[in-house]
Amino acid sequence: MSEVDQNTMKEKAAQRAADTVWSGMRLGVGTGSTVKFFIDALGKRRKEGLALGAVVTTSDRSRQQLESLGFTVGELSDVEHLDLTIDGADRVDSHLDGIKGGGGALTMEKNVAVHSLHNTWIVDESKVVDHLGGFPLPVEVLPISAKQVFNQFADEGLLPRFRTTDTNERYVTHYGNFIIDLYIDPLPAPRGLASYLDSTVGVVEHGLFLGICDTVIIAHEDNTIEIKKRQ
Amino acid sequence: MSEVDQNTMKEKAAQRAADTVWSGMRLGVGTGSTVKFFIDALGKRRKEGLALGAVVTTSDRSRQQLESLGFTVGELSDVEHLDLTIDGADRVDSHLDGIKGGGGALTMEKNVAVHSLHNTWIVDESKVVDHLGGFPLPVEVLPISAKQVFNQFADEGLLPRFRTTDTNERYVTHYGNFIIDLYIDPLPAPRGLASYLDSTVGVVEHGLFLGICDTVIIAHEDNTIEIKKRQ
Repeated sequence: MSEVDQNTMKEKAAQRAADTVWSGMRLGVGTGSTVKFFIDALGKRRKEGLALGAVVTTSDRSRQQLESLGFTVGELSDVEHLDLTIDGADRVDSHLDGIKGGGGALTMEKNVAVHSLHNTWIVDESKVVDHLGGFPLPVEVLPISAKQVFNQFADEGLLPRFRTTDTNERYVTHYGNFIIDLYIDPLPAPRGLASYLDSTVGVVEHGLFLGICDTVIIAHEDNTIEIKKRQ
Repeated sequence: MSEVDQNTMKEKAAQRAADTVWSGMRLGVGTGSTVKFFIDALGKRRKEGLALGAVVTTSDRSRQQLESLGFTVGELSDVEHLDLTIDGADRVDSHLDGIKGGGGALTMEKNVAVHSLHNTWIVDESKVVDHLGGFPLPVEVLPISAKQVFNQFADEGLLPRFRTTDTNERYVTHYGNFIIDLYIDPLPAPRGLASYLDSTVGVVEHGLFLGICDTVIIAHEDNTIEIKKRQ
C-alpha cells in the first residue's frame, strides 16, 4: 500500500471518528498521524457549526493544530470529566486493551483517557493483534531511581532498554522523567504486569491501557473501515 | 516534657542510630528534627575517622547540613543500592509499617528507602501507634488530573484535602506535583489501600511505607530509648 493510499485510509477512519462528535461534547484529543487527520476533519465540522463544550489535548502539536483551526483548548481541570477522547494506539488486542506511549506522552494520555466516559482509538490494521505484543511497552520512571528500577526490570526478565534520542541521550518526558521500554513479546498476563508496574516505586505510569478503550476504528489495507466495540 | 528534654531525647536516639553506621557503608539520610541530630552525631563520628562509602539524602536541608560537616553527598544513581537509610516517620505501627510524607518529600524518601537494604526510623513515642492512623495520609498527585483524583478519593470516602501553604496556595512538591492528604483515621487495611492508590492513574506516590522499615529507635518520654526490630 502506497503512502498516498495509507493516508487516504487514515483520513477515511479519521472522518468516521469525527462523525461521532456532537456539539456540546467535552472532547479529549490525542496525538499521532491519524489524529492529525481527525483534527482536520473536526475543523471542517466546526465550520459547519459544531460547537464543542470543551477540548483538552495530550500534546503541544495537537494543541497548535486545534488552535489554528479556531478551537479553544482547555485543561482537564476545567471540566468534571470528558465525554469522549479520540486517540491512536500502538497496539490493540481483541479485548480492546492496548499499548500506548510510542510517542512518549503515555502519562498525559492515560490521565486524559481514564477521565473520559468513552475512548475511541483510530488505528490502521498493522496495530491490531490477537494478544498484546509486537511493540515495546513504555514505562515512565523517575530519574532518581531509574537505574535501580532498570536493574529490577532486568532481573524480572522484562528486557528493559532506556529510550534514547537521535543524539543518543536519554529521552526526557514532558514531566522530566525517563522512559524504559520493555521488549517482552508477547506480553504475558497484561493485568498482572500492570499491577506489578503500578506497585513498583519509581514508576510514574506505563503504557498498558487496559479496559479503557471502548471503540476502535480500524483502517484496513483492503480499503475498508471496521468499527469494533467492547463487548 | 519540655522542649529541652525532648531535644535531649531526640539527640540520644539520634546518637544510637549513628552508632549503627560503619565505615564503607552506603548511607541514606532522611529529613526531620531528629535526623538533624543524627547528622550532627554522624559529623562527630566522621571526625573520629568514619569514612562512608556513599551518602545520599532526601532533602536539600539535610544535604546542606551533611556538606557543612564535610560529607560528599551523591545521588542514588551513583550506587547499586544503599546499605542503610536513617529517616524519621510520622507514624509507625506494631508491624513497623508507617506513614511518611508530612514534610512533603514522600516520593524521594520512598525511592531512597526501597533501594536500601536496611531502613531505620528514629521517632519519639508520640509517633508510635498500634494501628496506622492519627495522621493524614499524604498522596502525591499529578496536577493534570488532580481535580478528578480528588473527587474520586472523596467518592471513595477517603476524606481528601489538598495540602496548602501558609499563604493558602496549593503546596507544590519537588517534582512539581500536588499533595492530597487523606484524613481517614484509623487507616483500614493499609495494604489494600496502598494497592488502590498504586493503581490510581495520576498518583505518583503515597505515604504508606509498608514492609520497608526493619528497625525503629523510639525515644520515650520516660527518658529511655527502645529499639524495635521487625519480627
